Amino acid sequence: MNSFGRIFRVHIFGESHGPAVGVTIDGCPAGIPLSQADFEKDTERRKAGAAGTTPRKEDDIPEILSGVFNNATTGAPITIIFRNNNTRSADYEALRDTPRPGHADFVLHKKFDGYNDYRGGGHSSGRLTLCLVAAGVVAKKVLKDISIIAQLIEAGGNTDIEAAIQKAVEEQDSIGGIVSCSVKGLPTGLGEPFFDSAESLISHIVFSIPAIKGIEFGSGFGAAKMKGSEHNDAIIDADGTTATNNAGGINGGITNGNEQIFRIAVKPTSSTPKEQQTWNNKTQQVEPFAVKGRHDLCIALRVPVVTEAAAAIALADLLLLNR
Amino acid sequence: MNSFGRIFRVHIFGESHGPAVGVTIDGCPAGIPLSQADFEKDTERRKAGAAGTTPRKEDDIPEILSGVFNNATTGAPITIIFRNNNTRSADYEALRDTPRPGHADFVLHKKFDGYNDYRGGGHSSGRLTLCLVAAGVVAKKVLKDISIIAQLIEAGGNTDIEAAIQKAVEEQDSIGGIVSCSVKGLPTGLGEPFFDSAESLISHIVFSIPAIKGIEFGSGFGAAKMKGSEHNDAIIDADGTTATNNAGGINGGITNGNEQIFRIAVKPTSSTPKEQQTWNNKTQQVEPFAVKGRHDLCIALRVPVVTEAAAAIALADLLLLNR
Amino acid sequence: MNSFGRIFRVHIFGESHGPAVGVTIDGCPAGIPLSQADFEKDTERRKAGAAGTTPRKEDDIPEILSGVFNNATTGAPITIIFRNNNTRSADYEALRDTPRPGHADFVLHKKFDGYNDYRGGGHSSGRLTLCLVAAGVVAKKVLKDISIIAQLIEAGGNTDIEAAIQKAVEEQDSIGGIVSCSVKGLPTGLGEPFFDSAESLISHIVFSIPAIKGIEFGSGFGAAKMKGSEHNDAIIDADGTTATNNAGGINGGITNGNEQIFRIAVKPTSSTPKEQQTWNNKTQQVEPFAVKGRHDLCIALRVPVVTEAAAAIALADLLLLNR
Amino acid sequence: MNSFGRIFRVHIFGESHGPAVGVTIDGCPAGIPLSQADFEKDTERRKAGAAGTTPRKEDDIPEILSGVFNNATTGAPITIIFRNNNTRSADYEALRDTPRPGHADFVLHKKFDGYNDYRGGGHSSGRLTLCLVAAGVVAKKVLKDISIIAQLIEAGGNTDIEAAIQKAVEEQDSIGGIVSCSVKGLPTGLGEPFFDSAESLISHIVFSIPAIKGIEFGSGFGAAKMKGSEHNDAIIDADGTTATNNAGGINGGITNGNEQIFRIAVKPTSSTPKEQQTWNNKTQQVEPFAVKGRHDLCIALRVPVVTEAAAAIALADLLLLNR
Repeated sequence: MNSFGRIFRVHIFGESHGPAVGVTIDGCPAGIPLSQADFEKDTERRKAGAAGTTPRKEDDIPEILSGVFNNATTGAPITIIFRNNNTRSADYEALRDTPRPGHADFVLHKKFDGYNDYRGGGHSSGRLTLCLVAAGVVAKKVLKDISIIAQLIEAGGNTDIEAAIQKAVEEQDSIGGIVSCSVKGLPTGLGEPFFDSAESLISHIVFSIPAIKGIEFGSGFGAAKMKGSEHNDAIIDADGTTATNNAGGINGGITNGNEQIFRIAVKPTSSTPKEQQTWNNKTQQVEPFAVKGRHDLCIALRVPVVTEAAAAIALADLLLLNR
Repeated sequence: MNSFGRIFRVHIFGESHGPAVGVTIDGCPAGIPLSQADFEKDTERRKAGAAGTTPRKEDDIPEILSGVFNNATTGAPITIIFRNNNTRSADYEALRDTPRPGHADFVLHKKFDGYNDYRGGGHSSGRLTLCLVAAGVVAKKVLKDISIIAQLIEAGGNTDIEAAIQKAVEEQDSIGGIVSCSVKGLPTGLGEPFFDSAESLISHIVFSIPAIKGIEFGSGFGAAKMKGSEHNDAIIDADGTTATNNAGGINGGITNGNEQIFRIAVKPTSSTPKEQQTWNNKTQQVEPFAVKGRHDLCIALRVPVVTEAAAAIALADLLLLNR
Repeated sequence: MNSFGRIFRVHIFGESHGPAVGVTIDGCPAGIPLSQADFEKDTERRKAGAAGTTPRKEDDIPEILSGVFNNATTGAPITIIFRNNNTRSADYEALRDTPRPGHADFVLHKKFDGYNDYRGGGHSSGRLTLCLVAAGVVAKKVLKDISIIAQLIEAGGNTDIEAAIQKAVEEQDSIGGIVSCSVKGLPTGLGEPFFDSAESLISHIVFSIPAIKGIEFGSGFGAAKMKGSEHNDAIIDADGTTATNNAGGINGGITNGNEQIFRIAVKPTSSTPKEQQTWNNKTQQVEPFAVKGRHDLCIALRVPVVTEAAAAIALADLLLLNR
Repeated sequence: MNSFGRIFRVHIFGESHGPAVGVTIDGCPAGIPLSQADFEKDTERRKAGAAGTTPRKEDDIPEILSGVFNNATTGAPITIIFRNNNTRSADYEALRDTPRPGHADFVLHKKFDGYNDYRGGGHSSGRLTLCLVAAGVVAKKVLKDISIIAQLIEAGGNTDIEAAIQKAVEEQDSIGGIVSCSVKGLPTGLGEPFFDSAESLISHIVFSIPAIKGIEFGSGFGAAKMKGSEHNDAIIDADGTTATNNAGGINGGITNGNEQIFRIAVKPTSSTPKEQQTWNNKTQQVEPFAVKGRHDLCIALRVPVVTEAAAAIALADLLLLNR
């Protein structure tokens, strides 16, 4: 399903090597200042270019097709597209018979009876996260003074990220990482249990980001080893401020006014330069396999801004629901 | 929101100390054999009674109000209710001015302007998981030969669960745990990216279970420390069987035909017998606080059957979508 | 699908001859006064008893299972059930092989592979409108000072309704009618085009009422014969008051602050006492057919209160969306 | 809300005088042949040009941005945009203080605090029906051998349409009309009561088309004047064929395998050349008002192809739900 959200609804479309990728945002309130320049900072943060990121570089200029008039949102659906200019589809022709390990090639082929656009992962490409980032820019404006900051806090098991990337480049093998996200200024009361707890909505959208394999809120997996008397956060004033924050700002699926904290696990880029094994549909046997195309060694480097966007979208939806 | 699912839709209602809790399942195919006896095994597994679980015991007899005729589903909505018989609401009157640490008392009071049913957590009580379990029984029937098995693999940081419970009873402090869930027999192709990846739907419903603070698929957080060449699962036959299973049976948000594996972190029961601190709205100061009522020392003991139910519901929905 | 609404969500369940019918209302704001007595007036209006209505009489006592505490809504899902006491299922056994003309017997059997509860129409029975009426009682409270009044303005082609019923009793043949509904006090701005226009949502829920075959807003079908200069309603003040009301209070799918008016066409009760023809699956030929069971001669008599409920539900949803 | 459908989901965006209008179709099965040429016939039918239609002419060339690869659908969201080339926005500047009677100017201004794109009706313009038509082309392909034919059967109260248009041109006043739609080849069993009856879904989407004020199925409003013995359609074979078709192919909200028939009422074009009255926000009084811009005298001429599209979208969704 290409839709997320109940009030602030985000729809995504496009393929890595098609004419464009894009996003439609429905349910955004009217009167929010918005123009092309607003997207620059976050699309730049998401862009490739650093050591460990893919040499494919796109301009990523947002084209606003609808929903904005005189530099403000109109209340009508906002559609933003990004043209794909820098595609080298020929890289992928050779791979039709050899599904890349770790990628969705095999499952997409099966799910869509071979009709899927297999070039560069098609609709399942990481390129689609650009659309999330664009929607996140709008969502952040809806959230006004609420700050969302995500950071890569570990790569390849190392908290010195630069060193980790350097090592990956030397070893020519991809690595994963852990992204931590902090949200400050949230009002108390966001989250719609039973099913739409704050954790439910955030994890739902976070797991739509490619390469994410885990999420934890507050003390998360660490909480499983704690005692109740250690884990419970004592409430210390009438606003609900807590002395500790093991809950990560959420009780019973509802924000409690304290800092919201979650961490996500990013797996190593599937397209590692190292030789691998995969099934060859032509020869009907397992064969050595080398990745072509242009790829990130550490996709996790680009995940923080996407995580912020995902969190912003989920929280904007909850905020608008809670008016 | 009390609804989950697009085709196989589950709606939950009720409060811990109201007349009943219940669930409506919409979109279940007609012709599935179903009768009261089918619910017994899983509702028993969920029940209190073991060391470390609450002394409050309910009969948990399902009353099927609709959607079943001549012991088979009719295609119409299935509503099942469970009467609440064993309520001691007076336990909670004292707590109106002292929100329990770790619980949702404070946020619910604020979100619903004080109108929420505060007795025993009201609609946010763990009692509502009985409804999930009931829906899970039906979902498992939709999934037919697909097996879902969840187990508590660690409690209070200890893999010897009995010893962990024993220690908690001695220390009179609640503990958390980790539940692992394995799904076998899933067809390839379930999951609807971009937004409704298999991980997205499973995590969405899992985080609606009270006390869950983390989830990871396959190698999960461990993946963040691996190299691509280690993490990628080599495809070794035409069915997509993989040599390893770091992906936990999901690639690009779509099931790949291998075993699906995920783990969830359960926090310690908020209602620990240990004395705590909380804000007192009457005295306007932080005061010592002791829990009354009847509670589990290790709520995680009861989570496996609920986890199975949650997974079954999400997967039944994806299966019916994928016909 | 048993659900209607985006914020104020109504879920319906039950069968005519099952243990109970019921409704769950999700998304109702907390703090609305609500108790059993509130339902009496509208459930009485819907009840059988007048000339031309079925001799089957039910107590229709609402049992509130959840979502209400201390006589006010809590913000949690509200579930209300009505027990079925007065069922004579044996009446229907003879009809298993002879689908009743005008009824859904044939299509339900085919759609659900024969597993549907065929007694009294099962889930498709007019009895389910009791659940709509109950949800309408709650919706009207959400709408506060907005008045919704529906009336039967024509029966069997006659505006003298009593005479029409008298004639139907004499002729022993069922009749249809036209219900007109007026909504006063609506704010300007309700309706969410493109797809969720005010007319779209009202017609959607109105056509879920059994026996409805047409709806028109304002001058409706009459508008098709008018000229633009006749049909357009001149705006005469800054509040948007119009000199005429051909639009029926809606422009471009959005309420304009004037009276909202719509009319619906109710077909004659399918269960007429007159002999008819239908296919007999046993004899495999067309045969004469006589209705058994207890039925209304003019179901339209009972439709006004259901229409009010339907309109109230749709408008409550739009109102809450528009905060 | 810009979305319609549960499986076959249509999202619409754009404004009359913005850069483009467009549509995203989610949930379309993979493997359906589709290319630019497929859209030509229906977009041409919708186009202006005949007597009685607006002189604004657009190229209406569909640009397929996603979801199609090697001339077949991929299973990913299909986005199609149409550039707006022929806009004369200056026509509308004068109208900012004088809301046009019959149009949504007044309600849009109020609903969106003046931020709406008022040029040519903005997002509420009839131009958006081009997007419906495009989605209808895809929906018709999903419906394969099911035929949907809509026709204008009455204009300005006259069944001789040409004469009616001629008279409207002479009188320089806009007129309305009635469109009849016939669907043949539908399987028995489409429709998801209680709430998603076939009539509910069709009317929902039909009332999203601008200028529609009524809909009736089968004998519709005529049924309200019939007796049960006249109205009931006798079932005459094991397939459910009926001797008459007063039900319009739908019983209990579910298709019965017979021809589906419905009629819709189209109001006269709001932009009539005749002088009218409206409120002037600057002078704060009612003043004479003359329409500028380019408009249809009989918008109903362009409605049949849009009606077919709307019906196709609703039925494709029900068909895919019913697999």
